[in-house]
Amino acid sequence: VTIEIFPVQFDAEIVEGDDLAELIRAASRPFRDGDVLVVTQKAVSKAEGHVVDLADVEPSSRALELAGSHSDPRVVEVILRESVRVVRHRGPLLITETHHGLVCASAGVDRSNAPRPGTVVLLPRDPDASAADLRTRLEGQTGARLAVIIADTMGRPLRNGIVGTAIGSSGMDPLRSLAGQVDPNNFQLATTVVAVADELAAAADLVLGKLERVPAALIRGYAAAGEGSARSLIRDPAMDLFI
Amino acid sequence: VTIEIFPVQFDAEIVEGDDLAELIRAASRPFRDGDVLVVTQKAVSKAEGHVVDLADVEPSSRALELAGSHSDPRVVEVILRESVRVVRHRGPLLITETHHGLVCASAGVDRSNAPRPGTVVLLPRDPDASAADLRTRLEGQTGARLAVIIADTMGRPLRNGIVGTAIGSSGMDPLRSLAGQVDPNNFQLATTVVAVADELAAAADLVLGKLERVPAALIRGYAAAGEGSARSLIRDPAMDLFI
Repeated sequence: VTIEIFPVQFDAEIVEGDDLAELIRAASRPFRDGDVLVVTQKAVSKAEGHVVDLADVEPSSRALELAGSHSDPRVVEVILRESVRVVRHRGPLLITETHHGLVCASAGVDRSNAPRPGTVVLLPRDPDASAADLRTRLEGQTGARLAVIIADTMGRPLRNGIVGTAIGSSGMDPLRSLAGQVDPNNFQLATTVVAVADELAAAADLVLGKLERVPAALIRGYAAAGEGSARSLIRDPAMDLFI
Repeated sequence: VTIEIFPVQFDAEIVEGDDLAELIRAASRPFRDGDVLVVTQKAVSKAEGHVVDLADVEPSSRALELAGSHSDPRVVEVILRESVRVVRHRGPLLITETHHGLVCASAGVDRSNAPRPGTVVLLPRDPDASAADLRTRLEGQTGARLAVIIADTMGRPLRNGIVGTAIGSSGMDPLRSLAGQVDPNNFQLATTVVAVADELAAAADLVLGKLERVPAALIRGYAAAGEGSARSLIRDPAMDLFI
């Protein structure tokens, strides 16, 4: 089975109130049953209006303190509002845990590709719900059975570089268990669970230009199955042997 | 640009001494300039004979202690020999840092898909060198300019599930910098570096069945560029803000 990854290219910036499902449908090749659509969180947040104008932000004393002379304290204030805790802080770098449970740089708050200078884009409030909403509308418009992943590029511990990562999903189980299967020698794979939604998000990122108005990618040929929340990808810290 | 991912399916088990380049060339569709070949570490190690027969292993007292009643002390002994330090240990789970600098479960030592019952497969001794060797031979046989990635599926901190990960590379820079590029609003992406080799390894894993004799995947349509070692993907712990 060959997998194909098609970029979905827009010819205009996404603005608040845009019907993202309709824009994607119009820009994509026709959907087929089993297609996986990976959409950037930035496209979703811009369409949902999850954007903050820094002129409206009054930094707290904590934000002023963390910003020091490196950072815009209004951006730090927005990051703190999106976070449940600060994990680490060094110079302008701030790693926090977001209210979604994601541990990432700047709580996903980003100035690049923002709608206007002086604005920042936040992560979607509820990425699973955004994925479910897009999926429902796209399935309604097209009649095809789909899976939808909301993705962001994120840094990670231990390794350099950011990678496409699933933060919301609908229409598939983000984890695929190989437990109980046996190899050609009859050795049983006891506990292998693959984070397939993260692999799909990483694959999609190969065509999701950060700069070229490609807010989505269509992946064809991967047999997504099941149903589940992207929160299942977030490890319970008590179970984390790495850190 | 569409990306295509083709599984490279073998019809026999790989054994020590196999000419892996020739087997891949024969099983794959014809290579074209710019193709990225992702090969599982297990295929490489089996062909290179980097396999240990547990009957030949005398566990040390440290291995006996770590194995307790959960684990085979001979497997633990092999893991310790492949490691420079034990990062964490709980029950049968052992996270170590390998001599390559990889922090992973069991130092990558694996009983599944081993050549025979009672044997374990190690990670390749020098995955970059294995990638370079495969690349040189495949380029010589086919005349196409290629990139080769050696991949394994690995767990990671913070998130559940394993994902395809690059542990060796040749013919491409595993990291792609977006620094200096500007978005449509002229906002400069100061420090964005994408771990493209990890994204390619994750994408390939979508077709690399753990059980179906698919030891490689051919990725077409991704413009790999540059040159570099997969060691560049391993973060200097002093620079790690996550842990």
